[in-house]
Amino acid sequence: MAELTGNLLVAQSGGPTAVINSSVAGVICEAGKHECIEEIYGGLNGVYGILREELVDIGEENTSDIQRLKHTPAAALGTCRYKIDFKTDPKQAEADMKRLFEVIEAHNIRYFFYAGGNDSQDTTNKVHLEAQNRGYELRAIGVPKTIDNDLPHTDHTPGYGSVIKYNATTVMEVGADVRSMATDDGSCCIIEVMGRAAGWIAAGTVLAKREPEDPPHIILLPEIAFEEAKFIVKVQQTVEQHGCCVVVVGEGIKDAAGNEIGADKTKLDSFGHPVLAGAADRLADIIEPALNLKTRTVKLGYAQRAAAHYASETDVEEAFACGEAAVRAAIEGESGFMVKLVRQSDDPYMWGTALQPLGDIANQERVIPRDWIDADGWLPNEKFITYARPLIQGELHLPTEQGLPVFARLKRARVEKVLPPLE
Amino acid sequence: MAELTGNLLVAQSGGPTAVINSSVAGVICEAGKHECIEEIYGGLNGVYGILREELVDIGEENTSDIQRLKHTPAAALGTCRYKIDFKTDPKQAEADMKRLFEVIEAHNIRYFFYAGGNDSQDTTNKVHLEAQNRGYELRAIGVPKTIDNDLPHTDHTPGYGSVIKYNATTVMEVGADVRSMATDDGSCCIIEVMGRAAGWIAAGTVLAKREPEDPPHIILLPEIAFEEAKFIVKVQQTVEQHGCCVVVVGEGIKDAAGNEIGADKTKLDSFGHPVLAGAADRLADIIEPALNLKTRTVKLGYAQRAAAHYASETDVEEAFACGEAAVRAAIEGESGFMVKLVRQSDDPYMWGTALQPLGDIANQERVIPRDWIDADGWLPNEKFITYARPLIQGELHLPTEQGLPVFARLKRARVEKVLPPLE
Repeated sequence: MAELTGNLLVAQSGGPTAVINSSVAGVICEAGKHECIEEIYGGLNGVYGILREELVDIGEENTSDIQRLKHTPAAALGTCRYKIDFKTDPKQAEADMKRLFEVIEAHNIRYFFYAGGNDSQDTTNKVHLEAQNRGYELRAIGVPKTIDNDLPHTDHTPGYGSVIKYNATTVMEVGADVRSMATDDGSCCIIEVMGRAAGWIAAGTVLAKREPEDPPHIILLPEIAFEEAKFIVKVQQTVEQHGCCVVVVGEGIKDAAGNEIGADKTKLDSFGHPVLAGAADRLADIIEPALNLKTRTVKLGYAQRAAAHYASETDVEEAFACGEAAVRAAIEGESGFMVKLVRQSDDPYMWGTALQPLGDIANQERVIPRDWIDADGWLPNEKFITYARPLIQGELHLPTEQGLPVFARLKRARVEKVLPPLE
Repeated sequence: MAELTGNLLVAQSGGPTAVINSSVAGVICEAGKHECIEEIYGGLNGVYGILREELVDIGEENTSDIQRLKHTPAAALGTCRYKIDFKTDPKQAEADMKRLFEVIEAHNIRYFFYAGGNDSQDTTNKVHLEAQNRGYELRAIGVPKTIDNDLPHTDHTPGYGSVIKYNATTVMEVGADVRSMATDDGSCCIIEVMGRAAGWIAAGTVLAKREPEDPPHIILLPEIAFEEAKFIVKVQQTVEQHGCCVVVVGEGIKDAAGNEIGADKTKLDSFGHPVLAGAADRLADIIEPALNLKTRTVKLGYAQRAAAHYASETDVEEAFACGEAAVRAAIEGESGFMVKLVRQSDDPYMWGTALQPLGDIANQERVIPRDWIDADGWLPNEKFITYARPLIQGELHLPTEQGLPVFARLKRARVEKVLPPLE
């Protein structure tokens, strides 16, 4: 493979995770080793900013901030949910793609790395294919990222280990709190976590359970149809047995007809899906009157995907390695692939990276296999635990200043624009 | 003062904190140094369990678990909200007090330590006074505890530093997440924290703000009457300036007429107060339509008071010292006092413990001084920051097992009952 000399563009897309910046750090650190990569640029806010020619010069950043990216939550380069969507608006999508390549060509971008989930891998694939069509030599590699753990072909996704480590810790702590309060009638606490179609995040909190009596007592997964009457009985039985019931619910749980329990159909997100705001509150409204049971809710929301202060060290390292592997693959001449994580063994946990064609990834969602969940559907089983446990190992011990974490603050020195503004 | 020989009873009451067990550890460790203290008992679930003669023998616990109490969240001995209430039910209260002293005398309790907030200090005071009335030699000392930081006379309360350290970290992380998502129209995130009458917990998140543009942008305190129209304008201005607005709201905010914004009057807690479940959701319902602004909510709930994994080391040490000081005071012959924390200097932060008569504490609530809040009411000012910052210093680095914290698991070996069961 002939050496390809030019500039590198790395960008982030979709909902942030605690470790997406670690992947960017991996790209930057690996890129620095290769002389054929001349300038390292960051695209601000993914394709949204790239279309506006908003590029930053990573070379202007302090190396200490690049190191800090490994433990900095959110998307340090900014992110977006903007999608180049040929299906719903082909005219706009064509205009976007044309503009994107104007920016890419104007800045001699030859290496393109995009960290994101399903939609972002789809975008990367389109960029790869468009470059081929145009005969523009570009190496485009997707870097996996999503707390949802719903990408196919990869053993798991960077971001997942950290969200379940934090959530499981929270369930342990909240569970201890709920159990310690004596009441005559018992109590219930419902903790709502993210996860729309797949219950990976909710399922991960089972790691908090070390003894049979430990919380969580019930985990409601989107994969298992919610049945109200059975749920009420299960909560009642749990309270009779343990004095309290700690429930974890994935925000996207549905009834047998496919209706989302927590959907507020008056609110839509930017993709037109109803915002899921209320699964825990909805369940509390069911349980409290049915069982006359004191019921409290916790909604971790963005806190769970941003919780760098209790990120999984394993996750941080894997995210970094995915960034490095993406650059190495591109240097070796590959394009049109996503880096994936491959598990070599469970115990001791061993892993590596490999490549998967982007066309295999886009717009597919992976859910929890049914045989990883107890027959009665209330908890994930040992198969799931064997899978998930290695992913939460290790802590970070973040540097602090005046008692709070120190995160990277990028300067974001702008690369001079050479194109007319986006219309 | 003549030496008083007998047994010790320590118990916990009210809502748990991340460090209330550290105070119990302080009591136990100090008690072990004094030969006049024969047996160390724990009362399960505060007075609720003590009335049922549910005592555990701390001497049967592993020393490693006593050490782990320093970083174990919730109430390791169990807690309750049971109140010996002479005002609303004098007959029941008299019966309770009689029974309490039957238990105390049956087990030769001569040292009584009760860790809790306002109501618990009131209980401790009643026990102290009743012992005097009966001529039963008992030394009763209150140990301060509450995340709410609303006890008078003490500089602050153990539990407060940890809750604001965790909440401020969460605001930094969620804030980074919200800021990193590019949108055409901006976005808003509302983080609800505890605090019914006093805004200490919400105010503490101001420590997350290192630069003027940093979140939190608005902190809504129960001390400042909520004005909907002004709030909408302030959010709009913030989004125009920063692209997003991160709001922290204390659950107990009220309008000028004193109506709690988040109160759900259909639900009452065990003291008959309406459960505050919805300040953040209520504010989102105001902001989203008024400004057509994507608005998400986070409700940390019990997670914030149980977050031992990011507790303040300073708080843990102070909580432990309060337990030690309580025992030393009792050994020196004192009774009817609460241990308080006394600040000697802000920078360097120096502190000590002292005693305050329990009669000065009970059923008073301390709110944030008005001159610690900006004139416009949107954020606490430098006076507050100078006060709060020392309280969050230091991290714990909890021991872990398979990637999750290891907390104490007490054996709770029961002390043999000698009384007839509670009627």
